[in-house]
Amino acid sequence: MTDDDLTLAQALADAAGAAIRPFFRKAFAMEAKGDLSPVTEADRAAEAAMRAILTAERPGDGIIGEEYGSERAEAERVWVLDPIDGTRSFVAGRPIFGTLVALLEAGRPVLGVIDQPIGRERWVGARGRPTTLNGAPIRARRCPTIADAHLATTGPGYFSAESYAAFERVGAAARDTLWGGDCYNYGLLAAGHLDLVVEDGLKLYDFAALVPIVEGAGGQMTDWQGRPLDRQSEGRVVAAGDPALIEPAIALLQAA
Amino acid sequence: MTDDDLTLAQALADAAGAAIRPFFRKAFAMEAKGDLSPVTEADRAAEAAMRAILTAERPGDGIIGEEYGSERAEAERVWVLDPIDGTRSFVAGRPIFGTLVALLEAGRPVLGVIDQPIGRERWVGARGRPTTLNGAPIRARRCPTIADAHLATTGPGYFSAESYAAFERVGAAARDTLWGGDCYNYGLLAAGHLDLVVEDGLKLYDFAALVPIVEGAGGQMTDWQGRPLDRQSEGRVVAAGDPALIEPAIALLQAA
Repeated sequence: MTDDDLTLAQALADAAGAAIRPFFRKAFAMEAKGDLSPVTEADRAAEAAMRAILTAERPGDGIIGEEYGSERAEAERVWVLDPIDGTRSFVAGRPIFGTLVALLEAGRPVLGVIDQPIGRERWVGARGRPTTLNGAPIRARRCPTIADAHLATTGPGYFSAESYAAFERVGAAARDTLWGGDCYNYGLLAAGHLDLVVEDGLKLYDFAALVPIVEGAGGQMTDWQGRPLDRQSEGRVVAAGDPALIEPAIALLQAA
Repeated sequence: MTDDDLTLAQALADAAGAAIRPFFRKAFAMEAKGDLSPVTEADRAAEAAMRAILTAERPGDGIIGEEYGSERAEAERVWVLDPIDGTRSFVAGRPIFGTLVALLEAGRPVLGVIDQPIGRERWVGARGRPTTLNGAPIRARRCPTIADAHLATTGPGYFSAESYAAFERVGAAARDTLWGGDCYNYGLLAAGHLDLVVEDGLKLYDFAALVPIVEGAGGQMTDWQGRPLDRQSEGRVVAAGDPALIEPAIALLQAA
């Protein structure tokens, strides 16, 4: 991962934002995709714009995208794209969805961007560097005690019955729970405004960009066993602004 | 309710926004209030600013506010103030909380403002007039069939066990559910981006401003028995962009 990769990742987010903005709060065709994340014209236009740039600029790298699938997915370097994370927020007109861009090296996320193209907020995280929000370094806040933690998650419907029961144990222990938010919650955690995010059902393109952002701000992000996230992770994630929260959160998630 | 009242309501929102903006995403003292809505310095500063204007401009009118209680609450005309609706969103740094200003005449809401001071979005509704968003008239969208409806609600924790079961019947019938959002959901419904909002546990200051906004956009807002909302309503509300959705939603909420 080089400075050029960081510049390119932001060019991808710029292109996605330009593709998305004309559709925000406009009536448009929407297909049912049969899961929680309706496909929109904006989603496709944004991913196509990013892929065109990657194909020109990094022809040897792999690409995994939410809308258009995988190319060279077994390459050493793979770009992971989610043009609109938080499609329901987007469709409802909430300016807290995001474009996610990640770079994996050897299966591990080393670079991530969350871009909110309406409010023009951009988080950039890269291994070994401080996470930034609109160019300014940010830090997650200290919160070593779960009873003090402000917890967030996108919604009950993203869990199974069993994983929701596990989530509710964390919710009962935390100070309070904020609902909705998708990727935006992880950006707010990295900026020191939330302490804990617990989710199930995430795909690689939902979480890959978040890891370098959370960790470059001093936080930690793992699966529900406390293991680092990589391209084999199965979609249950915990993000903590204070790494001291990971252990008690995992203990509650694993309690039977 | 006069044109002067509309101008004054917007001056109140301006004053609240000016009081709130310096606190957004800043660390600040926060007290536990023992319920779902933590009191913040911003909340108090904003309500104090609005009350100072009302005391000067409308000395005979009543005031009911979230933070500082009631004065002349039995007056014919009563202003109802919620300086920060969506305190958890505010505390977490999400720009989708709102300042709510309502005017009641004979106990019925006749004027309402939702102001989002970070994104600078303002909905204004008044009996007999078209609802506006930043000055432009808006309309809720047609959606006569509950299976097509995009539903929103702030979170499971605002319901009782019994009322959550009722909510879940509506959720199962609707197309999908968006979580979080507080007053902002009602603004999005009035603008044609959401179809149905169902909530429990609202206070007068949480819902009074929303009624003229939803109804001035062609929607309808009732309690869970389908009755109009007034100052005696007990906190269970349904808002529908298409009035045809009220009857099926009520039927599901009342099913035993």
